Amino acid sequence: MRISELARSVGLPIATVKYYIREGLLPGGAHTARNQADYGDDHVRRLRLIRTLRGVGGLDIQRIRGVVAAIEDDGLSRHEIFGVVERARAQDEASGSGARVDPRAKEDIDRFIERLGWKVRAEAAARDELGQALTALRQLGREYGTDVFLPYAEAADRMAAWEIGQLPASEPPSVAVERMVVGTVVFGAVFDALRRLAHEHHSAASQARHASD
Amino acid sequence: MRISELARSVGLPIATVKYYIREGLLPGGAHTARNQADYGDDHVRRLRLIRTLRGVGGLDIQRIRGVVAAIEDDGLSRHEIFGVVERARAQDEASGSGARVDPRAKEDIDRFIERLGWKVRAEAAARDELGQALTALRQLGREYGTDVFLPYAEAADRMAAWEIGQLPASEPPSVAVERMVVGTVVFGAVFDALRRLAHEHHSAASQARHASD
Repeated sequence: MRISELARSVGLPIATVKYYIREGLLPGGAHTARNQADYGDDHVRRLRLIRTLRGVGGLDIQRIRGVVAAIEDDGLSRHEIFGVVERARAQDEASGSGARVDPRAKEDIDRFIERLGWKVRAEAAARDELGQALTALRQLGREYGTDVFLPYAEAADRMAAWEIGQLPASEPPSVAVERMVVGTVVFGAVFDALRRLAHEHHSAASQARHASD
Repeated sequence: MRISELARSVGLPIATVKYYIREGLLPGGAHTARNQADYGDDHVRRLRLIRTLRGVGGLDIQRIRGVVAAIEDDGLSRHEIFGVVERARAQDEASGSGARVDPRAKEDIDRFIERLGWKVRAEAAARDELGQALTALRQLGREYGTDVFLPYAEAADRMAAWEIGQLPASEPPSVAVERMVVGTVVFGAVFDALRRLAHEHHSAASQARHASD
């Protein structure tokens, strides 16, 4: 199909599709005899992935480029795949201006993860994010220990074990990356939205109980 | 204290502090006899809150302004407080370019929330976020029903019930807003980071099991 049909079929402006091609997120079309570019189902699929990562996950172009490069590379080790998946949902560093990690908070987080018995890369961005959160909580006032994270770690452990159990036992790295990125980004956003709705519901229920005391 | 001391005490550049004052996130200092502005502990506290919302939560200036306005307004209804708290963690709309909600997905989400028995505002942004996620999943290929969200809803329900149970029974709306925004933003980021670490851990454990089969 032509670029105009491609754009129409996914509901994006042609200019956006051209922009993604220029930025290296989408391969160009195959050149046809009539000196036109021809696009296929792979392009449709890729555009839907990009739209999901941007729209639901709020990823910027640079991080989407990292995901796309990983999908196109079938030689990634499991270690490398995790780097890609994790960075896809990691806090946008540009927006993280001013988020600092106190060295003591960093040590506390490393010890906390060790105590959980979790085997995770030393350079995982999530360690720093936890360190930033702990630093921020301590600066906001109380002398928080990592114990405040324990109920969250237990919930995350249950959820992740169930999620990993849903994955097919083996698939090519490129397919695994796409599935894991989408799962991490989309269901991360889903859980966050549900948690906020559940706050509202339980807060109303709690107020009603207090009022009837 | 002077603005230079204020900036030093929270570790921010003076220019950043001035910028926050210009943007209305931080009140100006009290004017002293010597025609200087004097800043106090409230300013320190407010700057730490802003840094947390920006650094850990990745909130933009506009959304922080909404939070700050709510903290300064002790006349908010519970309804209004939830709007503020929810928007604080809601997906950044500017980055959500291209995230659409299929009308059928919207209906499905509304029915799903009703089936859960959750009482939440019709205009909650989280409904749209769930609709976007469902639309995206369906466009990526399979004919997903809202049942895929059920394990997440159950986990969110447990977590939110526990979190709301931790809140003091009554406090002024301004204090409640600050506590709820910080809790939603910081512990939302904490859970997201822990979930990614737990994925890595369980994936390694799962691979080890498959290898030894």
